[in-house]
Amino acid sequence: MKFYDFHMSNAAYRVRIALRLKGLEAERVVVDLVAGEHRSAWFESLNPQRMLPILEDGGVTVVQSLPILEYLEEVYPEPPLLPADTAGRAWVRGFAQSIVSDMHPLMGRRVRRYLAERIGASAADIGDWYGNWIAAGLGGLEDMLAAREEPGAFCHGDSPTLADLCLVPQTYNARRFGRDLSPYPTVMAIVARCDELPAFADSAPERQPDWRSMEGMIPGGR
Amino acid sequence: MKFYDFHMSNAAYRVRIALRLKGLEAERVVVDLVAGEHRSAWFESLNPQRMLPILEDGGVTVVQSLPILEYLEEVYPEPPLLPADTAGRAWVRGFAQSIVSDMHPLMGRRVRRYLAERIGASAADIGDWYGNWIAAGLGGLEDMLAAREEPGAFCHGDSPTLADLCLVPQTYNARRFGRDLSPYPTVMAIVARCDELPAFADSAPERQPDWRSMEGMIPGGR
Repeated sequence: MKFYDFHMSNAAYRVRIALRLKGLEAERVVVDLVAGEHRSAWFESLNPQRMLPILEDGGVTVVQSLPILEYLEEVYPEPPLLPADTAGRAWVRGFAQSIVSDMHPLMGRRVRRYLAERIGASAADIGDWYGNWIAAGLGGLEDMLAAREEPGAFCHGDSPTLADLCLVPQTYNARRFGRDLSPYPTVMAIVARCDELPAFADSAPERQPDWRSMEGMIPGGR
Repeated sequence: MKFYDFHMSNAAYRVRIALRLKGLEAERVVVDLVAGEHRSAWFESLNPQRMLPILEDGGVTVVQSLPILEYLEEVYPEPPLLPADTAGRAWVRGFAQSIVSDMHPLMGRRVRRYLAERIGASAADIGDWYGNWIAAGLGGLEDMLAAREEPGAFCHGDSPTLADLCLVPQTYNARRFGRDLSPYPTVMAIVARCDELPAFADSAPERQPDWRSMEGMIPGGR
């Protein structure tokens, strides 16, 4: 199994946690997004979308974090990262997808660069942009968690699911951008509980061998 | 079964196709996004994310289009909209997710409004922004389709899958914005084949009872 990863990829972070929770050993291939390696010919032939993460396993190539997580769930089901019941799976997938499609895509490096370089947005504009989508997204997630009929230790029940695997990287990112996350107490209590588990803690960007500081490199970032 | 829908929601369009392909009758509840009905208290209590689409079925509420499609696949498996093999499912999910998380979120109405009202982007800026993400996304999808080992009539094989259900609404949207889609011949051949099927054709925005023209209402739109 080969896993194409980069420490600062928020989407790859989700998969790093899953691999650790499932105890899977993957050969890690670092694709340096800051150096532009995702625009190289070898990478483009692997993934025409030129995005991380990618998983290769026994002749199967899977792109996009949630499809990789669904693949892992199908092929390596233990421990399960989706609930056993249809309603639970639907809730977890809805929660995870809210992060993956309504929050993260608006905050990525390519988007912030476009805003700065092609629309002339100031660093303050980009900070506001970031904060707007974080507040809209986390506010909704906090309300989803508060409305649970049977609150557990994690987003759904008492073990981590895809919902937690998406939530933790997104809040990591928000903290990196200096956002105040105190309006989201349920979210942050779950994140604190996740970060106590080695699979989550060891997947954080600064724990990866390719880590280096990105301070000052990102428009609107700190 | 209740389906919360609006003719111009691209994400809801995906689910409309699935419901028709599976022959499912749902009570359709129109949520007028232009009138701001998604910000009303009744809707927010249903979905704190304040987004369409939503499916309610036998006590289960599912938010987000892909989770709804996965739910339908689990509960109403015929005809299947995911391949029978793990590798095929992973490919289809990766293709669909590329649209759902790398293209569509950057083009929605709330994003275009933010760019215009809060960053001061001109209509031309917004048109360029839209075109940039369409070109990046469709270019990658065209390459993914061209690289298939066994090209079929649809994105994967000879019957529609979630990949087609996401592709058709996205290209509908691109045409509405007047984009030239001739650089994507494989994409467009598949879209033409889909649009010959009543389930796809009848799901188009202008075939919905709540349809009205949105010309001129959208910054950067035609």
